Amino acid sequence: VKPFAPGRSGAGTVGSIGEEALIRAIRRWLGSASPPPPAGIGDDCAVLPPSPVRLMTVDPLVYGRHFDAAVSPAAAGAKLLKRNLSDIAAMGGRPGAAVVGLVLSPNTSLRWLERFHRGLAAAARKHSVAIVGGDIAQAPDCSAAGTGYFSAHLTLLGSLPGGRALTRRGARIGDRIYVTGVLGGSLASGHHFRFEPRLREGAWLAKRRDVRAMMDVSDGLGKDLRALTPRGAAPAIWAEQLPRRKGATVPQALSDGEDYELVFALAAEADAPGFERAFHRAFPRIRLTEIGRFSPARRVPAGALPPSSLRGYEHLR
Amino acid sequence: VKPFAPGRSGAGTVGSIGEEALIRAIRRWLGSASPPPPAGIGDDCAVLPPSPVRLMTVDPLVYGRHFDAAVSPAAAGAKLLKRNLSDIAAMGGRPGAAVVGLVLSPNTSLRWLERFHRGLAAAARKHSVAIVGGDIAQAPDCSAAGTGYFSAHLTLLGSLPGGRALTRRGARIGDRIYVTGVLGGSLASGHHFRFEPRLREGAWLAKRRDVRAMMDVSDGLGKDLRALTPRGAAPAIWAEQLPRRKGATVPQALSDGEDYELVFALAAEADAPGFERAFHRAFPRIRLTEIGRFSPARRVPAGALPPSSLRGYEHLR
Repeated sequence: VKPFAPGRSGAGTVGSIGEEALIRAIRRWLGSASPPPPAGIGDDCAVLPPSPVRLMTVDPLVYGRHFDAAVSPAAAGAKLLKRNLSDIAAMGGRPGAAVVGLVLSPNTSLRWLERFHRGLAAAARKHSVAIVGGDIAQAPDCSAAGTGYFSAHLTLLGSLPGGRALTRRGARIGDRIYVTGVLGGSLASGHHFRFEPRLREGAWLAKRRDVRAMMDVSDGLGKDLRALTPRGAAPAIWAEQLPRRKGATVPQALSDGEDYELVFALAAEADAPGFERAFHRAFPRIRLTEIGRFSPARRVPAGALPPSSLRGYEHLR
Repeated sequence: VKPFAPGRSGAGTVGSIGEEALIRAIRRWLGSASPPPPAGIGDDCAVLPPSPVRLMTVDPLVYGRHFDAAVSPAAAGAKLLKRNLSDIAAMGGRPGAAVVGLVLSPNTSLRWLERFHRGLAAAARKHSVAIVGGDIAQAPDCSAAGTGYFSAHLTLLGSLPGGRALTRRGARIGDRIYVTGVLGGSLASGHHFRFEPRLREGAWLAKRRDVRAMMDVSDGLGKDLRALTPRGAAPAIWAEQLPRRKGATVPQALSDGEDYELVFALAAEADAPGFERAFHRAFPRIRLTEIGRFSPARRVPAGALPPSSLRGYEHLR
């Protein structure tokens, strides 16, 4: 991985202007995505308008882990928000206010940081998210070689316009397993930063009582599915049914991760063809695929992928 | 600064157990401070109970910046929360739910991390804060020498039981400036991690209509006061009035930072002696000091500190 902001110093860096000027610059870069205080940046806390907050999530973007020099700064800023939007989508929620915590080296380029924030702001405006506050901390000197460090944590709130949060729990044996879009090859294709969070689809699905459980696919379907699987069950997945991105193999579709698609359980007794027709009327351009069912744990049908093959990205190992 | 978790590897580290086991361990360490899903850790978002959320703030704790090896892991975990509680206190709010984003090296010791989380949990229980979610990301390899990296971002929500958020804006020329506690020497004395956030005092002050503006002292009174100063005014501070920690000089009281005390403006026309009596009845053990007034910018009285002497800690420079 190419180091972040390597070896720069002096004019044009964060360290050349200091924290107060940097905060002013960030407010300018965020523009209308950032309301004035006390609703936004500039006080000890942001004061939120009275409105029902029901969801809360946090996801980071760390240089060298979640993006690198191959991703434009604007796309990185958008990805920071979109990762969190995908979590709100996975509950069937609507996004609300956000705060951002930055950790960066003083040699971080202001031009880079401006583009990052303009990308973040554009994504925030698109999804009616208000960036209401944040914090900037200096990264410890972690290298003698002038290597930089950059991480951003975004915490996002959400509401539940339909009143219902569609959680990971609730699937039963016999339920059909569906996934939106295509899986695999996210890194190679650039999908990992180009994806669109499935907010409209998630909210639509949460309104359907025959959808029993849902999550987004971030660590790879194979691993993520385990969290959706009811006790005593196993997912019976038909490999040939897996919707794969062009060039992606079945193992890649199962384990690459960063798909940011929705996987959910449709009640066994639901009218599946009727459900699919309704989905396609609402979202004509979104692929929807039944990939299998939850079967009793020891009776996974021959022909389905063996549960041991369902693995995803294991962090920190 | 002694490096974080230097050179450890293998058994007893985060990397030896992987993310899923680590999340289970963190839930165990947090105990009753962390409700079960969907209200807590374990789904795409935390589902908050319907309750009025009006405040949102984020503050980090970065090893080498906000703490080091001289601070016990339990005290570091508590400090992460208390920094944010101080921001809620500064608005007169009551704390609610929190999420935590960690970035750490795989060589981080599990024992250290357990103590950190147990300290965080104890502080959370004390202040009725629920840790409802979070994220763990691996730090990029930033050194060939095995130096570790650790940062934690905590985002905290709050409510406004009295209906009013006491912001930084609202002070007028002539208003008296008060500060709680004593200032300076926070690092040397250990106050920077031993402090108690002024939540009760902040809520009490927000109920008083004669208190016009408030903030907490985190970057040093000299710098922070600028944010409280109305347009066209300057703070006229009497150096001999500054309540200093034992051994702290006037410049240290003005610029050390990390005091986590409250500074606020009392209306010029208020009954100051009556106000002070009421405060002392409510908080007999908390020192309260009138340190000066907001005067017209070009008429700072002789004997007051010159505005140019009011400086605090400037980050990133």
